[in-house]
Amino acid sequence: MGTTQLEQAPETKYWHLKTVIGEALDSEFAVGEILPNERDLAARFGVARATLRQALEQLELEGRLQRRRGVGTTVAPPRMGVAVGAAGNGWPGGTGDAWQAADSTQEIPPASVAELLGTGEETVHVLRRSRMYNGQPVAADLLYVPAASVPDLSAIDIPDGVTRARVVLRELQRLGFEGEDRAVELGSARADDARQLDRLPGAPVLLVTTRYFGPGGRTAAVSVATYRADTCRLTFGGDVEFHSGQERRAS
Amino acid sequence: MGTTQLEQAPETKYWHLKTVIGEALDSEFAVGEILPNERDLAARFGVARATLRQALEQLELEGRLQRRRGVGTTVAPPRMGVAVGAAGNGWPGGTGDAWQAADSTQEIPPASVAELLGTGEETVHVLRRSRMYNGQPVAADLLYVPAASVPDLSAIDIPDGVTRARVVLRELQRLGFEGEDRAVELGSARADDARQLDRLPGAPVLLVTTRYFGPGGRTAAVSVATYRADTCRLTFGGDVEFHSGQERRAS
Repeated sequence: MGTTQLEQAPETKYWHLKTVIGEALDSEFAVGEILPNERDLAARFGVARATLRQALEQLELEGRLQRRRGVGTTVAPPRMGVAVGAAGNGWPGGTGDAWQAADSTQEIPPASVAELLGTGEETVHVLRRSRMYNGQPVAADLLYVPAASVPDLSAIDIPDGVTRARVVLRELQRLGFEGEDRAVELGSARADDARQLDRLPGAPVLLVTTRYFGPGGRTAAVSVATYRADTCRLTFGGDVEFHSGQERRAS
Repeated sequence: MGTTQLEQAPETKYWHLKTVIGEALDSEFAVGEILPNERDLAARFGVARATLRQALEQLELEGRLQRRRGVGTTVAPPRMGVAVGAAGNGWPGGTGDAWQAADSTQEIPPASVAELLGTGEETVHVLRRSRMYNGQPVAADLLYVPAASVPDLSAIDIPDGVTRARVVLRELQRLGFEGEDRAVELGSARADDARQLDRLPGAPVLLVTTRYFGPGGRTAAVSVATYRADTCRLTFGGDVEFHSGQERRAS
């Protein structure tokens, strides 16, 4: 795996540049301020524009910069700590549920979700929900609820839409809640989620998959939530205000 | 914010291509298989190489592909579920701690960590640790322990290195453990972590910042862990085997 190879790789050049720009952001720029254009920045730091662009991409990954069409590159505010543990979610539709339902359809879920639910090729309720934080959309979510979890619902009578979403959530409340677990991974925004989150398709996102367990430990519902990775830091265990762990001034 | 603008953006072209390639990966390729070169792939799908490259980058973000120098692009195995909740970590140095200490120094921590610890410009113990999973390095960690958390340690007598790391962890055990909380965010690999994780500097990583609370709810230690985002899915709450939430076949 060649330590030497890594050290001599061209990547280290923009890495160093990234550190230098990061220091300049700390000392010379305020949050929201627009950076000089790429040509001027490249000239200032004495690097090729391709190298500069790579460094800016890294700083965007780390949440230091925001790049938006028609605006340019601005200095990003610190990421928001968004509670993802039980405190910020809870049983869907219950007290403390941070999500707003916007739509409901009936579909065969993706294979990975069907496997978690044990539903196979069966149609399930799919609720599209969104989560706001400080007035900004921070996450979009698909909540998959098998018919077996809402046995008293005669779904045929209610057309697709937000009304059925509310009825599904209300019925889900009647199941006993036995726990939940979560997985967090890196993903890229699907076109519809990107639209909802005001991002471009393919932008890096944090994918949070939650399994909600009902009576007998059976999986009663699965949520696949897409969080903006640029503006969010996901917090677990307590709602304590928490500052960024990204080591901004580390060598 | 222009929904229309997003839909007409050139990004949707590679997004569609990404879906098509993703389907081809499912149906035609096995895990570990090397993909045809970029020129052949671009020809097969009738796209420019720049478009193809963007699509491959997205698939890499989603953990579907691995791109390594000298090997080419291979089909990635499913991500590993790595327990990050209390089950997989626990009080540093205690039973169930998944980390191996490799080094110990005394340094002034980055400003963000000093703020969490409330140590200001004070020197703290910095333990470099690593975490293996299925024989692969999955995470690198810096554990910051203020002198106040290990009051009986006469650090002056022990030189920098793994021996002092072990002594610091042993002394930390003597503090009462009152809880922990965590934050997960997107970051880019620092040069030293990248080396330890066999990645290139700047690769996307998942940064997990953990605060360990001691007597009186005081922050006794802070860990900043860098997890490989390509191979890991972080799991919270139970060690149940958990399949990927990334919707591989979603439209």
